Amino acid sequence: MIKAGIIGATGYAGNELARLLLGHKEVEVAWYGSRSYIDQKYADVYQNFFKLVDAKCMDDNMAALADEVDVIFTATPQGLCASLVNEEILSKAKVIDLSADFRIKDVKKYEKWYGIEHKAPQFIDEAVYGLCEINREDIKKARLIANPGCYPTCSTLSIYPLLKEGLIDPNTIIIDAKSGTSGAGRGAKVPNLYCEVNENIKAYGVATHRHTPEIEDQLGYACGQEVLINFTPHLIPMNRGILVTAYASLKKEVSYEEVRAAYDKYYADETFIRVLDKDVCPQTKCVEGSNYVDVNFKIDLRTRRVIMMGAIDNLVKGAAGQAVQNMNLMFGFDEAEGLHQIPMLP
Amino acid sequence: MIKAGIIGATGYAGNELARLLLGHKEVEVAWYGSRSYIDQKYADVYQNFFKLVDAKCMDDNMAALADEVDVIFTATPQGLCASLVNEEILSKAKVIDLSADFRIKDVKKYEKWYGIEHKAPQFIDEAVYGLCEINREDIKKARLIANPGCYPTCSTLSIYPLLKEGLIDPNTIIIDAKSGTSGAGRGAKVPNLYCEVNENIKAYGVATHRHTPEIEDQLGYACGQEVLINFTPHLIPMNRGILVTAYASLKKEVSYEEVRAAYDKYYADETFIRVLDKDVCPQTKCVEGSNYVDVNFKIDLRTRRVIMMGAIDNLVKGAAGQAVQNMNLMFGFDEAEGLHQIPMLP
Amino acid sequence: MIKAGIIGATGYAGNELARLLLGHKEVEVAWYGSRSYIDQKYADVYQNFFKLVDAKCMDDNMAALADEVDVIFTATPQGLCASLVNEEILSKAKVIDLSADFRIKDVKKYEKWYGIEHKAPQFIDEAVYGLCEINREDIKKARLIANPGCYPTCSTLSIYPLLKEGLIDPNTIIIDAKSGTSGAGRGAKVPNLYCEVNENIKAYGVATHRHTPEIEDQLGYACGQEVLINFTPHLIPMNRGILVTAYASLKKEVSYEEVRAAYDKYYADETFIRVLDKDVCPQTKCVEGSNYVDVNFKIDLRTRRVIMMGAIDNLVKGAAGQAVQNMNLMFGFDEAEGLHQIPMLP
Amino acid sequence: MIKAGIIGATGYAGNELARLLLGHKEVEVAWYGSRSYIDQKYADVYQNFFKLVDAKCMDDNMAALADEVDVIFTATPQGLCASLVNEEILSKAKVIDLSADFRIKDVKKYEKWYGIEHKAPQFIDEAVYGLCEINREDIKKARLIANPGCYPTCSTLSIYPLLKEGLIDPNTIIIDAKSGTSGAGRGAKVPNLYCEVNENIKAYGVATHRHTPEIEDQLGYACGQEVLINFTPHLIPMNRGILVTAYASLKKEVSYEEVRAAYDKYYADETFIRVLDKDVCPQTKCVEGSNYVDVNFKIDLRTRRVIMMGAIDNLVKGAAGQAVQNMNLMFGFDEAEGLHQIPMLP
Repeated sequence: MIKAGIIGATGYAGNELARLLLGHKEVEVAWYGSRSYIDQKYADVYQNFFKLVDAKCMDDNMAALADEVDVIFTATPQGLCASLVNEEILSKAKVIDLSADFRIKDVKKYEKWYGIEHKAPQFIDEAVYGLCEINREDIKKARLIANPGCYPTCSTLSIYPLLKEGLIDPNTIIIDAKSGTSGAGRGAKVPNLYCEVNENIKAYGVATHRHTPEIEDQLGYACGQEVLINFTPHLIPMNRGILVTAYASLKKEVSYEEVRAAYDKYYADETFIRVLDKDVCPQTKCVEGSNYVDVNFKIDLRTRRVIMMGAIDNLVKGAAGQAVQNMNLMFGFDEAEGLHQIPMLP
Repeated sequence: MIKAGIIGATGYAGNELARLLLGHKEVEVAWYGSRSYIDQKYADVYQNFFKLVDAKCMDDNMAALADEVDVIFTATPQGLCASLVNEEILSKAKVIDLSADFRIKDVKKYEKWYGIEHKAPQFIDEAVYGLCEINREDIKKARLIANPGCYPTCSTLSIYPLLKEGLIDPNTIIIDAKSGTSGAGRGAKVPNLYCEVNENIKAYGVATHRHTPEIEDQLGYACGQEVLINFTPHLIPMNRGILVTAYASLKKEVSYEEVRAAYDKYYADETFIRVLDKDVCPQTKCVEGSNYVDVNFKIDLRTRRVIMMGAIDNLVKGAAGQAVQNMNLMFGFDEAEGLHQIPMLP
Repeated sequence: MIKAGIIGATGYAGNELARLLLGHKEVEVAWYGSRSYIDQKYADVYQNFFKLVDAKCMDDNMAALADEVDVIFTATPQGLCASLVNEEILSKAKVIDLSADFRIKDVKKYEKWYGIEHKAPQFIDEAVYGLCEINREDIKKARLIANPGCYPTCSTLSIYPLLKEGLIDPNTIIIDAKSGTSGAGRGAKVPNLYCEVNENIKAYGVATHRHTPEIEDQLGYACGQEVLINFTPHLIPMNRGILVTAYASLKKEVSYEEVRAAYDKYYADETFIRVLDKDVCPQTKCVEGSNYVDVNFKIDLRTRRVIMMGAIDNLVKGAAGQAVQNMNLMFGFDEAEGLHQIPMLP
Repeated sequence: MIKAGIIGATGYAGNELARLLLGHKEVEVAWYGSRSYIDQKYADVYQNFFKLVDAKCMDDNMAALADEVDVIFTATPQGLCASLVNEEILSKAKVIDLSADFRIKDVKKYEKWYGIEHKAPQFIDEAVYGLCEINREDIKKARLIANPGCYPTCSTLSIYPLLKEGLIDPNTIIIDAKSGTSGAGRGAKVPNLYCEVNENIKAYGVATHRHTPEIEDQLGYACGQEVLINFTPHLIPMNRGILVTAYASLKKEVSYEEVRAAYDKYYADETFIRVLDKDVCPQTKCVEGSNYVDVNFKIDLRTRRVIMMGAIDNLVKGAAGQAVQNMNLMFGFDEAEGLHQIPMLP
């Protein structure tokens, strides 16, 4: 039994971490950190935890926390983890950062897209990008995990096999993504009000969204060359779920079986990736509440393009679930421990 | 490890049973019965089960099923269970009926409200009404369980302590209930289409809904006299959840503490009933996906009435979850086994 | 052609006023007041008005405004209209106040329920309660209109004929109301975020909601005695719409025809009130975007109660539409001018 | 005052036609055709029309109808209009077909994508594709209008100026479209149930959707060469609205002003097309209930692509509104008559 602390426990990703860790056999949550709700009962902030969590919210003192727990999750805005982490903390506790601070290896690129100075560049090289299915072995040895973004997780896993196998042209990748509103966080802002989101759809961050360089980096590692993509996220009137629809030109004419074999090569043994049957489209509802990634593809012979699709729950595989999966790998637990939730339908 | 069969596995309640039983340590689902989808893969009907359930749908032969399993769940339309069950089946397997067939002890009342002839009246007396928190000891010994309706579960548990303790006048009870659309089932009907339900609210079955006599019976048992109520259900644009707002006149002036004590007397030790803190209203979202019942009340001194509120997930505590809870009691398992889901928010 | 000014034009009711007045043949909107968005283009605050409204937002200087326009609408928080209005303003322009400031004739009652001091009690007597179907003649002569609240409009109109005709017992009235989220306004608050409201239902303001005394006053006028009610509002995951389900004991046994005759007596000639056919339940979707009130009732002989139901669009008949209807009466326009919108479905 | 008949009046597009025509000064609806609801009151099928429409539903006898009305709208499944129309009918009444029967000039292409035989190929050449902003002059003279599909309307208008002006490469066009559920019609099918659509998003008809050749034809006319595109529609949990996000490679480096000038060249004088301000994204909510098309674009210099976006209400500009606009052109009415609805928000 290890002890875990959550910094940023009152955001939606923090709340989901609490939900998953409470059902985890090897972990006890010892610290619900929340700058905004210090000394309030956690179950008063999140009524779903009534009678399940008695703890009050604590501050975000990472140094103090490192003395008490084995693993620290930071589910906080960009910049906070980098401003708090140091060598002493990392020598005492493993850190899984759900923010973007350690995802991008090029500090200049990070600072340009995020518009803030990086306060701990010395740890960027050490940090392991926690996309479990791709970087499993490195994760097992890591002290500091950069937990992937929600869009990058879904995008990368949907495209990776075809890029890795050289079936698609890296210069032609277009990613059109759709996300439920929990991805926008729990901050009280007019555009996230019920009446603004409901019965509406819009794109946002067109050609400027911060997840773009993160996806480009991961796709670049897959094909061994620089990749520039178009990435357009959309806000969807639903709570949870990301659907990625990605387009790329095929390098040559391929059969369904060849493309399918590429997916199977990398994912056939993966617990959490489900390559659907031919012509079945991923649906966010069918992964809701679970750590699954549903992927599939369609070849369009007329245009010689392939359409790649992926669906995740943005709060699970796109945030808290993948963080738990990373923790499991780092501590030698069963990789699926605490992540056995079956997608809930309807 | 026991074996279970589900007749009606492709309705929403059947699907939820499958979700819960797959996570249950003591049960294996051996039979996914579905008249409409015989020989089709269950995971093709419910894509959330892809890679999780390999079985194909079977017919609804309850006699054959009783030879293979220890417990049979019937999540089927009214009348089917009564038309299939017999002494031989009950001698081989326990039956938990999620339909209304055995909920009402007066067969004439059943036939009047449901408009069908009862095919197995000889089992009505034996059948135990499976409201676990009220009838726990009888359930443990039962062969045949009448699993309560969704509205009756939420209504009865919200009102029971005050009626049992004689604090409210049984002749003044009004129940205004609101339900998510999964309660209407998976049948393809125009009124249940997305565009008809979304951005809309309406009452239905006003003064005629079939759950009325079931609620009246249970409230009658609680106070030892006949009870007639007004019960008005409403259809809400959400997938899951029932909220009950019930009104009754107080027999005398009472304090918050007295009423609270009545709830605590019956529910303080119950795992699945949460009496919320003063002035906190139950919310369906805060029980979603779980077996919890959240209840609370408000005294209105101006009108000398009390407002009683309760929230459940209609597919869990209102159907499949309570069925599993009943099974646990009948087979001597931990009452909460398979029901540890934490409410999912958002 | 008269000129109108809106104070509070950037709230949801203000936005709806703008929508309705833009289609009104006799009115030109000359002032879009908004303290929060002064000098910003109105169409930048509400993108639906792009290319339709060129004006910028103005301050809330009611005295200056009275010099420029014939009618002033205040769609502002409680207390603002009372703090701004004075004799000089009323001598120059008619005022239609969409807040609660002049709805309650007993200033002490207002101050108790709203928790603020009333700044212009001298105008309370003069103000006419703008429920058009009940107070039409007084409205025609008024300088100052207290535009009714959304819940009181729907509640009063649903119950009025039966109370006026003495068919129901005033001491037994219970009103269970359900509202779309636009009723909560455009303020950026966590409980109104999409993810908090969606897939959720809860009661709020139980036994304490400020619309209670307003409804009680109106029902009291109808039956000529003091009325105390239970009023419980609920927040529904939809943008627009209020549904009222009201319960009362019948004074004597009555037939469908007798009750129907009571409704017809008051509403048969009303353009905006539709008494539905027998057994058809009002639905909010069927009045959406329009000024209609759909009402109906059901007699329950078992309990000797009647269930009265009403549906409105909270932003139209519950706010801006009724305000326009009041303006039409005050200025001698056709009562339905600018209010010919047909309910939009789906 | 002309008379109009609607065949297929009880589908969602037919219902919307009725809503728009009821507010039209020059038209009276004389025939509500509906094979499924013959002899039932139209207002019983669509409760929003209670007290507004007294008519009963009629059959779909187009020949009889042509004797009674000046214009016939067919809002019916593919194939019906072609099977009914003939020279005699066209000599008596103008026909506006909201189905796909006369949209595609190559009958073989139509039969391949729709899988049915075309029953009236002799009228295909004569039929005018009713995209009003592009084909206005031909529409004015037409007897038979092929009213454009919802996706093709939004897609074509979003892309047209750039293609026409030669700014983008026709071989690189990818259209990712998102639609509200009313586009799926009012047929009672499991995939369109509330619980299946709500809290879910999925692509459908990937690489095979029937609107693909229609869009390709229109884009081909704009650039004077054959165009093949990728078109991927998605089902969104909302009632109304289509958002198109389209991608294409720029032929050369261009400035914002150059692209903006292309849009202005074609749309500056159009009543119903609104080219939004720089960096403002179209939102379906901001056109809901109206005939507007909101378009905008974003240049991505990194990838040398342009992202084009468009939003419409699928039932208005995507169906009934455009049909009325076509009728207005054909009969010499003001083009905007009956179409002055202001988008409703929220």
